Amino acid sequence: MTVSDRWLLPDGVEDILPPLAGRIESLRRDVMDTCQRWGYQLVIPPLIEYLESLFTGTGHDLELQTFKLTDQLTGRMMGVRADMTPQAARIDAHTLGQEGITRLCYAGHVLHTRPRHMLTGRTPIQAGCELFGSASEAADMEVIRLMLETLRVAGLPKVHVDLAHVAIYESLIGEADFDRDTEEAIFDAMGRKSVPELDQLLGECPEGSAGFRLRQLARVSGGPEALAEARQVLAGGSPALTAALDQLARVSDMLSRDFPEVSFGFDFCELRGYNYHTGLVFAAYVPGHGEAVAKGGRYDAIGSDFGRARPATGFSLDIRALVSLGDRVVRKSGAIWAPADRDPALEGVISGLRMTETVIRALPEDEGCDPAERGCDRQLVKRDGQWVVESLD
Amino acid sequence: MTVSDRWLLPDGVEDILPPLAGRIESLRRDVMDTCQRWGYQLVIPPLIEYLESLFTGTGHDLELQTFKLTDQLTGRMMGVRADMTPQAARIDAHTLGQEGITRLCYAGHVLHTRPRHMLTGRTPIQAGCELFGSASEAADMEVIRLMLETLRVAGLPKVHVDLAHVAIYESLIGEADFDRDTEEAIFDAMGRKSVPELDQLLGECPEGSAGFRLRQLARVSGGPEALAEARQVLAGGSPALTAALDQLARVSDMLSRDFPEVSFGFDFCELRGYNYHTGLVFAAYVPGHGEAVAKGGRYDAIGSDFGRARPATGFSLDIRALVSLGDRVVRKSGAIWAPADRDPALEGVISGLRMTETVIRALPEDEGCDPAERGCDRQLVKRDGQWVVESLD
Repeated sequence: MTVSDRWLLPDGVEDILPPLAGRIESLRRDVMDTCQRWGYQLVIPPLIEYLESLFTGTGHDLELQTFKLTDQLTGRMMGVRADMTPQAARIDAHTLGQEGITRLCYAGHVLHTRPRHMLTGRTPIQAGCELFGSASEAADMEVIRLMLETLRVAGLPKVHVDLAHVAIYESLIGEADFDRDTEEAIFDAMGRKSVPELDQLLGECPEGSAGFRLRQLARVSGGPEALAEARQVLAGGSPALTAALDQLARVSDMLSRDFPEVSFGFDFCELRGYNYHTGLVFAAYVPGHGEAVAKGGRYDAIGSDFGRARPATGFSLDIRALVSLGDRVVRKSGAIWAPADRDPALEGVISGLRMTETVIRALPEDEGCDPAERGCDRQLVKRDGQWVVESLD
Repeated sequence: MTVSDRWLLPDGVEDILPPLAGRIESLRRDVMDTCQRWGYQLVIPPLIEYLESLFTGTGHDLELQTFKLTDQLTGRMMGVRADMTPQAARIDAHTLGQEGITRLCYAGHVLHTRPRHMLTGRTPIQAGCELFGSASEAADMEVIRLMLETLRVAGLPKVHVDLAHVAIYESLIGEADFDRDTEEAIFDAMGRKSVPELDQLLGECPEGSAGFRLRQLARVSGGPEALAEARQVLAGGSPALTAALDQLARVSDMLSRDFPEVSFGFDFCELRGYNYHTGLVFAAYVPGHGEAVAKGGRYDAIGSDFGRARPATGFSLDIRALVSLGDRVVRKSGAIWAPADRDPALEGVISGLRMTETVIRALPEDEGCDPAERGCDRQLVKRDGQWVVESLD
């Protein structure tokens, strides 16, 4: 390895430099502050855990995405978190162990063994909110509202939200009773919206059967008309199916009324990344970006896998991605240039100014440099024995 | 593994819960804001890098502390950062590559394979500042001043700072010309301040030799009198030795004048953790806590290992540890309880309040609960058709 190679970073891993780093920090703070004003309390889950606890209640997907490490103290396998939602569920179920409603929020780096999508890196900055202890639709509504509020804070224009309900797929696949391999193949093809593959896998299911309905449903997505179509496809289905469709209708009605600037649609075969979800799920999109900018939904099962059943819903997003997509006005504040002068009075003036302003102190190597090139718009100069701030123009 | 084991965390790894998590976030922001007001610009270095770049210019110590991972995309070995200072040096040398002075700051989790000390965990939250491009004493002074300012922000009482200079040890050990094994044993014994071991290792060195002086120097530490003692021990030494002692004297004089509330001392054999340092080094302590709460110093060599020589100095600290030790007044803000009522006017009132206040919305499961137990001190009630905020008392 030559000297010049030493600073190459792995694919999907980046240095975040000024001023982008500052914009990310600013959005991170604003998102966390928003969540806290909705009553969500900050937790800081650990970067590493034993694999058993990282994977409890989650799917195979997360396992593939998780970097594994050996714990030198015990020889047991640990992993670097790839998703903070299951960590929040563990904290709710055990570390906190409160009765009643618990609202938690978090923000931090997660690591993925491979980029999830072409558009994302391997070290997203995940932020999110989780609401535990309520099985109510009001809880589902609260987290969707809060997600939309954080996207507004991020300055995202033209947000579109797809709603779905895991019970629809679960109910049909359960009824169809395929063998495990076929079931996995269907799940996979559904996730990739591969109609040809689904035709092949489900082509022989008789009309009216659960398999036939699954195949039809994969072609249904869009606005209110899609919901009507889904109702036709699923007509005469189980009460669980009808309840799921009814909930989707109610929730989209309420959201459309509250957020006229957001468009809402339905995507019945959107299952990607929902491997631990159990009820209403949702994903937010912006034009020109194929991946969801935020997503979440109900996951009532993780808690019970940790030995304490708790209904749960929440959402998460990638702060790094949001900053690239959003159109946030960032307050540009200038800085004051201070000379290297050793006058003790100058020290006092600088200390005072630094309570609210950025002051950059000249060092010997700065001789002859242009303070404007260092981002300064003002400077400290001595006039009649007094240090005063003057414009650099 | 039983259900009850699934939520056990590895040793030295913890869930950080409310309200501690909020206090950590608050200090993290204040430390970053302080650094930025001194002209340090935020960077976000990656959580993982190839091992070669993580270890460039650093010592064996860091290698032992770093968790290793295989990059599935290339098969190369990566590591999870155990120290962000070398990352900042790499960013300065290459990613930014600016001429002149560059000031950078950062804050984030680092991971250690084993706890560094009994008192610390394996996932500290490291924050720090690095100043590149100046070999001047003014730069050393600036970072020490800024470190003291961040400790003041953290509310640390009775700070003590030990100053040392790596050139003293380097110069003596170079002069003595021991074999590599002996040199490592001496470095190790020096770091642990083990006088008996040093007596054994250096006991046969003739009076006046470099080895003899090293052994004497290991017993010298304390205030101004220690510096005088060190001058005696090192009398007639190389110009590098004299220059180092002169610098320690000048710096401690200036700092004592500027920070009368801080005590300053010298510790000539303090080498722990200074494996990439080259000049003036410093560490801050508080009573009752054996480990340094912040430390740093000059490291002019890392840049050149990255192919671009840059003088550098900086400091870093563990936000998590500071919060436990500091005595910061945290503003306690109450919250407003809002009923589950579906009145559209209530939605508007809540949105308005949430611009500055925390509002917790009741869910169906909250029926009969006491809002005060949820941290609320006020509630929204309807009086004469108007929603108003009333005290809970």
